[in-house]
Amino acid sequence: MIFNLTELLLFHRQEIMKWNGWGYNDSKFIYNKNGQAEFTGKRYRLSGMIIPGLRDWMESTFGATVQHKTPATPVLNTSAVQPPTLNEAFVEGIKSTGIPFSHDPEDRVFRSHGHCLHEIFPLREGKVGRVPDMVVWPKCHNDVVKTVELACKHNVCLIPFGGGTSVSSALECPPEETRSIVSLDTSQMNRVLWIDEKNLTAHVEAGIIGQDLERLLNESGYCTGHEPDSMEFSSLGGWVATRASGMKKNIYGNIEDLVVHIKMVTPRGVIEKSCQGPRMSTGPDVHHFILGSEGTLGVVTEVTMKIRPVPEYQKYGSVVFPNFEQGVACLREVARQRCAPASIRLMDNEQFQFGHALKPQVSSIFTSFLDGLKKFYITKFKGFDPSRLCVATLLFEGDREKVLQHEKQVYDIAAKFGGLAAGEDNGQRGYMLTFVIAYLRDLGMDYFVIGESFETSVPWDRVLDICRNVKARIVQECKDRGVQRHVMQNSPFAFFRAAMWVSTASKISPKQPSSCFLSFSFMNFVLKTSSFKKSPFLMSQMEEIGIKPPLTY
Amino acid sequence: MIFNLTELLLFHRQEIMKWNGWGYNDSKFIYNKNGQAEFTGKRYRLSGMIIPGLRDWMESTFGATVQHKTPATPVLNTSAVQPPTLNEAFVEGIKSTGIPFSHDPEDRVFRSHGHCLHEIFPLREGKVGRVPDMVVWPKCHNDVVKTVELACKHNVCLIPFGGGTSVSSALECPPEETRSIVSLDTSQMNRVLWIDEKNLTAHVEAGIIGQDLERLLNESGYCTGHEPDSMEFSSLGGWVATRASGMKKNIYGNIEDLVVHIKMVTPRGVIEKSCQGPRMSTGPDVHHFILGSEGTLGVVTEVTMKIRPVPEYQKYGSVVFPNFEQGVACLREVARQRCAPASIRLMDNEQFQFGHALKPQVSSIFTSFLDGLKKFYITKFKGFDPSRLCVATLLFEGDREKVLQHEKQVYDIAAKFGGLAAGEDNGQRGYMLTFVIAYLRDLGMDYFVIGESFETSVPWDRVLDICRNVKARIVQECKDRGVQRHVMQNSPFAFFRAAMWVSTASKISPKQPSSCFLSFSFMNFVLKTSSFKKSPFLMSQMEEIGIKPPLTY
Repeated sequence: MIFNLTELLLFHRQEIMKWNGWGYNDSKFIYNKNGQAEFTGKRYRLSGMIIPGLRDWMESTFGATVQHKTPATPVLNTSAVQPPTLNEAFVEGIKSTGIPFSHDPEDRVFRSHGHCLHEIFPLREGKVGRVPDMVVWPKCHNDVVKTVELACKHNVCLIPFGGGTSVSSALECPPEETRSIVSLDTSQMNRVLWIDEKNLTAHVEAGIIGQDLERLLNESGYCTGHEPDSMEFSSLGGWVATRASGMKKNIYGNIEDLVVHIKMVTPRGVIEKSCQGPRMSTGPDVHHFILGSEGTLGVVTEVTMKIRPVPEYQKYGSVVFPNFEQGVACLREVARQRCAPASIRLMDNEQFQFGHALKPQVSSIFTSFLDGLKKFYITKFKGFDPSRLCVATLLFEGDREKVLQHEKQVYDIAAKFGGLAAGEDNGQRGYMLTFVIAYLRDLGMDYFVIGESFETSVPWDRVLDICRNVKARIVQECKDRGVQRHVMQNSPFAFFRAAMWVSTASKISPKQPSSCFLSFSFMNFVLKTSSFKKSPFLMSQMEEIGIKPPLTY
Repeated sequence: MIFNLTELLLFHRQEIMKWNGWGYNDSKFIYNKNGQAEFTGKRYRLSGMIIPGLRDWMESTFGATVQHKTPATPVLNTSAVQPPTLNEAFVEGIKSTGIPFSHDPEDRVFRSHGHCLHEIFPLREGKVGRVPDMVVWPKCHNDVVKTVELACKHNVCLIPFGGGTSVSSALECPPEETRSIVSLDTSQMNRVLWIDEKNLTAHVEAGIIGQDLERLLNESGYCTGHEPDSMEFSSLGGWVATRASGMKKNIYGNIEDLVVHIKMVTPRGVIEKSCQGPRMSTGPDVHHFILGSEGTLGVVTEVTMKIRPVPEYQKYGSVVFPNFEQGVACLREVARQRCAPASIRLMDNEQFQFGHALKPQVSSIFTSFLDGLKKFYITKFKGFDPSRLCVATLLFEGDREKVLQHEKQVYDIAAKFGGLAAGEDNGQRGYMLTFVIAYLRDLGMDYFVIGESFETSVPWDRVLDICRNVKARIVQECKDRGVQRHVMQNSPFAFFRAAMWVSTASKISPKQPSSCFLSFSFMNFVLKTSSFKKSPFLMSQMEEIGIKPPLTY
């Protein structure tokens, strides 16, 4: 990604970000005039590139043809947004504080949702439900104190808003809410207040966006190491409020391991520990009330984070396994020996093929993405069945000598499970796609394909069961509802038959370096037909069929 | 320590453990008929040995002479124990459940306290305050459910009791409590219910004592790695309720990192997670309400712990530094590079000398305890000032090759701070003394010396400040109260002058492998004169002078 701090300070984020899709306005997958898939813009390494295999993959996997398009509503019809329910006393109070605010429909709609499918889907259709009546942009902790005091005094409902990438429905406005709803946008609280190099901590305002935080710390030679997939847009306060986990948690820990001190403004006053100590053995840990509270208890305004010197050395890697079972067994052994690299992710065969479809045309580091692998398994991996093999991608960090030792240890373990090293480039490309893949759902939705991700954690010995069972359950539930995979040959798309199919690609990565358990996410791509437009098939229905985190197994 | 499971299952623990001092009845420091210090019994490696230097150290450090003794009350005067306030309905209820119970004064007094100085001191003087009116011994989770239900129904006050080694005053009975107080002794709930070798977890009843748990797991080739200094006597449930930390936390983590699942009986019903997953990103973490709750929220009955294969290799080590400042700087660098061994502890010069005084006479692994060091610094460490040097003790664990690599890395860092390797034996002996040192306070109290330990955590750059300031503060507070160090030459003990002196020995060890902070404990030995007997100087007064955890700095 290309970083631009100024952009992220915008009050009106819709000027650079999609109001009804993922990420930057200028970045998206499209089919160009030649009918080829292309990623637009200039921000990412994939930007401006043709992705020849994607269209075929979309067609063969989902039956999603270029001819059958269901584009998103391009511009918000502001007349469809209900007029704000204003609390005049609160508005006057805010005016007197000098805290910026807005009643603009676009500002309000932008902050009315996270990025669950059931939140984005209606917006694409131009449907807007209950949205905040007002947005305020406090600039510091004290502004938040004032805002919360005014909200309490005048019986106004506050919803803290950080990066807006929530997938927990925490940003949704309850339709039945009659009070004035005010979105408290933390984006202007984005300063690194101090860095303590002796004790390796940084005190930061909670509205800072992930990429800004890392960039500012990097300038001083430090990092937090917290890299959730959403880090381009998600905020520090959001990480705390949602109990976030990052890609490199094996080394750096999850957000609860990185946080030393939290300041939160609640309706009853400010909550914070009296010291900057990371652990107290006396009494319950208040941090764990705040972590995961999703904005329901208060507004996180400032956070002290552990920081580390930027690692001296980074090395990517990848391993090909003959099948998913062997891959899982290898990851389990790595966890058992507690030698997980900064990141280790296992992709099943479907996700491997999906990655293959994202190979761009032009010559670049992406060119041979999985082409290298393809060549590998044609030559080196002759015994491997291309329709069964699976791939682990790795990222090692630390000082050079230790990384090399560590790498050897992991590859030695992999070898015991039939895993063969498949090169550094293949690993690196996998991680580089992380930020781009999030844009793919919007392309899918343009062509009647819907997708959602689920995450859970599960004991190691149940991993294969849950992978099999979740896939089977989705297929069965779709079938029970008369939703079938659209098969091009037999049931042409024009029939408008209720059709749905699930490609469940499993990406697994241990959540804790020393854990006996495994956490992983499913990525599910689901084909819907036009008939769904008449009978909207929303995420709430996905939940009805039992697909919601945490999954029950 | 010598392990004996049967003993620890006793209902009447006072049959093997001191009712007004630390540990086993048969193990204590005494001055024998020849006036030499000796450690009695057969349980420990130091048992039956003469410790020639201890008496001199007691005399020269505290002015504590053999002639001036203030022995503890040997036998509990049961007539001094107030008759139990019984709740007949509750007693009848318990009878009907078949849960064993007792109104015996000795059983009740044994469960009326932890091991803070202010709890033990009055008992030595034969003074007994408010004690539980009754003891019950539930045998399983369901027994606890029944007990708690009866307590709620009949308005009885429950105090959970595990190992009784609490230093948080949580076992104290409020004198003003008019309800019947019932001590719920968890010692009979001591089974390992299952071991899940695939996922490396063990489900254990919470009353199990630390040494039992480790022994039983070791029999299956596993361990938890949780080794608080109290592990001979403290219980799993107690670790959870007090948010315990263990000696090898750098590798294994603190109790909150080791716990996967907790079952707790509260007055409103049983609290437990619906799954055995170690982490959920949805919502606050209920475990962190329970951890540190000190028995105030309910009774922890069963715990699922992470387990690991017993490490292939263990290696002790020690490093001598020219001074404490260099030692602290080295530990800080080790933490910064995140390469802390399973255990790393830094002893200041006073504690080093204290350890020296504990050298036993007979030939054994103890013989050369610090003698080796002495020889070292006479020969190898010629430039080191014996009155300033300090020592770090180390414990490495893992597979052999990695331990050796790890060891090299730590010694290389130490060398940069003037640290010289001082041998494996010196390290090992330091750790072996851990369990025995706890017995020393009782010897001190026999001779007008009182001691208490404080623990806190502090940013690395404040370590030297807090060490200096705490020592200075104690000395100053004593002075302000007319309490001076008794100096043999000038103010002979017979004068009964108010005399007090503090030997503050600092032992520091990082609480978290990757932490930017440092946690450590102070061990303070304080001389009191007989005048204190007339005007009791208890721990509550220590608190008044600001010495209580967490320390403010």
